[in-house]
Amino acid sequence: MSKKNRQIVLASRPQGWVQESNFRLVETDVPALKDGEVLVKNIYLSLDPYMRGRMNATKSYASSVEIGQVMVGGTVGKVEASKNPQFREGDAVLGYFGWQEYGISDGKGLQKLPESKDIPLSTYLGVLGMPGLTAWVGLIEICQPKPGETVVVSAASGAVGSVVGQLAKAHDCCVVGIAGGPQKCNYIVQELGFDQAVDHRAGNLQEDLEKATPNGIDIDFENVGGEVMDTILGRLNTFARIALCGMVSQYNETQPAQFRNFGAMIASRVKMQGFLVGDYQHLWPQAQEELTSLLQAGKLKYRESIAHGVENAPKAFIGMLKGENFGKQLVKLSEE
Amino acid sequence: MSKKNRQIVLASRPQGWVQESNFRLVETDVPALKDGEVLVKNIYLSLDPYMRGRMNATKSYASSVEIGQVMVGGTVGKVEASKNPQFREGDAVLGYFGWQEYGISDGKGLQKLPESKDIPLSTYLGVLGMPGLTAWVGLIEICQPKPGETVVVSAASGAVGSVVGQLAKAHDCCVVGIAGGPQKCNYIVQELGFDQAVDHRAGNLQEDLEKATPNGIDIDFENVGGEVMDTILGRLNTFARIALCGMVSQYNETQPAQFRNFGAMIASRVKMQGFLVGDYQHLWPQAQEELTSLLQAGKLKYRESIAHGVENAPKAFIGMLKGENFGKQLVKLSEE
Repeated sequence: MSKKNRQIVLASRPQGWVQESNFRLVETDVPALKDGEVLVKNIYLSLDPYMRGRMNATKSYASSVEIGQVMVGGTVGKVEASKNPQFREGDAVLGYFGWQEYGISDGKGLQKLPESKDIPLSTYLGVLGMPGLTAWVGLIEICQPKPGETVVVSAASGAVGSVVGQLAKAHDCCVVGIAGGPQKCNYIVQELGFDQAVDHRAGNLQEDLEKATPNGIDIDFENVGGEVMDTILGRLNTFARIALCGMVSQYNETQPAQFRNFGAMIASRVKMQGFLVGDYQHLWPQAQEELTSLLQAGKLKYRESIAHGVENAPKAFIGMLKGENFGKQLVKLSEE
Repeated sequence: MSKKNRQIVLASRPQGWVQESNFRLVETDVPALKDGEVLVKNIYLSLDPYMRGRMNATKSYASSVEIGQVMVGGTVGKVEASKNPQFREGDAVLGYFGWQEYGISDGKGLQKLPESKDIPLSTYLGVLGMPGLTAWVGLIEICQPKPGETVVVSAASGAVGSVVGQLAKAHDCCVVGIAGGPQKCNYIVQELGFDQAVDHRAGNLQEDLEKATPNGIDIDFENVGGEVMDTILGRLNTFARIALCGMVSQYNETQPAQFRNFGAMIASRVKMQGFLVGDYQHLWPQAQEELTSLLQAGKLKYRESIAHGVENAPKAFIGMLKGENFGKQLVKLSEE
């Protein structure tokens, strides 16, 4: 009897907020390996806000997931069988197999990972993976922080935001994180070493941000959009830079984005740059080197929220979009 | 008896749309010249959208005009008397004397102009002045156009927009101008050589822009903001650039800016840069050289809307904000 592969496929496109009913669990047979192919048993699946965009039919930077297709996503796993000379059974690999327990690859885009006791496999989906690289590219390459500047990052306890803040501290900036609720706010200051935290759920966003940024804001690493971003616009210093990484507050909105403070873009001569980490592959080695040494020096801390079983991925994904996760959202698909 | 100087001062700050009642005409005596000073009789006053911002008390890139102060603005004129060895009676000069018939300067910031039959004095307030330099900096320095790219410019028949389009043509781009009404649209295509015009008053902005930009938009030189800008956002190509020069549609608005297509900033990895021409003085000589040679080659055409008499400046200014002018808006203050 052949091995079974459980997968989450897109059942329907969401209208506004994603529902669990937009997904469906299916079970298929793992097909026999052909020459050159590798079978990977996935251990961790990464859940990330960009996946919301792939659920829409509308133009996005990457093609949509089609109805009935397996949801996309980064995974780490171990080679279970190989007919490809470059991979051996037991190799740890980083792939892009999506929301499923097994993946088959011809080896292209599959990256062998070093196995070290220092560095857990899951970090290749987190601080050393796409979120970490995204933080590095947006902060270091796009915003070019200078010592003493004030950096604000939204979704600050999240997978990207928490790296942005710790990187900015390593570059001698004053770092203010915006997060939802006292628990996340305490975490970014007390565990991650941010200078200040602003709780966007406390109801005094503008006043609290003013207090936290007495010298204004030089850099905004923007993950959220919406009212949080608008409030930041109103505090920008001359020649401020905005790395536009995500607008998670907008992804489920059907209303237009509204900005009271958009005029600051000209008045303060602001550069705003939308970016995708995939366009900066030439910088990944440099970024990974810096992130790895920060991690090994204990200066790059992280948390993970781990859901268990592929069947729980939809619920965990929706929770993440609502900010219910704490740190990098993963789904554990099998034991290491 | 001393000479009289008629001035327009700010009488009150506008709420929403500027009214003529926000200004007041006053008459003062021209004071006696001190050593080192120059008395200039102004010939032309430039009216520009940025002046609207100076009428507000709120933070802007330059200090507000105070109630009772003379409205600011660029002027060209002739030296009528001089106690400064660097200027002689009859010298043509570019100054920043504002909305008044006479100005006194200690010579700082006063620029002697070459007098040539080729180049009328008023061009130093237009294609060779701030508007021309603004067009050059925003297009060439910020957006870095490449041959074959599609450039869109709003307020296309205006002082800045008309230079942007002609410069972009000189750099072998495909140029689409957005203007209000068939007269301005004909002008930018037939007289200025734009490839396409879109009339934002015709009621089919989105459809018309789609037709005019079959290959999408690579560069947006943004003068207008609001719905026009939002529609442009929806047509941007990957790695598009936006030079944010003005948002004249917003200056009299009390509502927030709304964008349905803001997500394109990330999806298309757009760079948006607010700028002020004053930050780029190191590039002015290079810009002036290119603009002058285009002008002398007949490749930089312009129109002027000329109001007569300082007392008519408020009315002309309000008309310009509403798009009633055609080309560079000037006020003639005295005969040459």
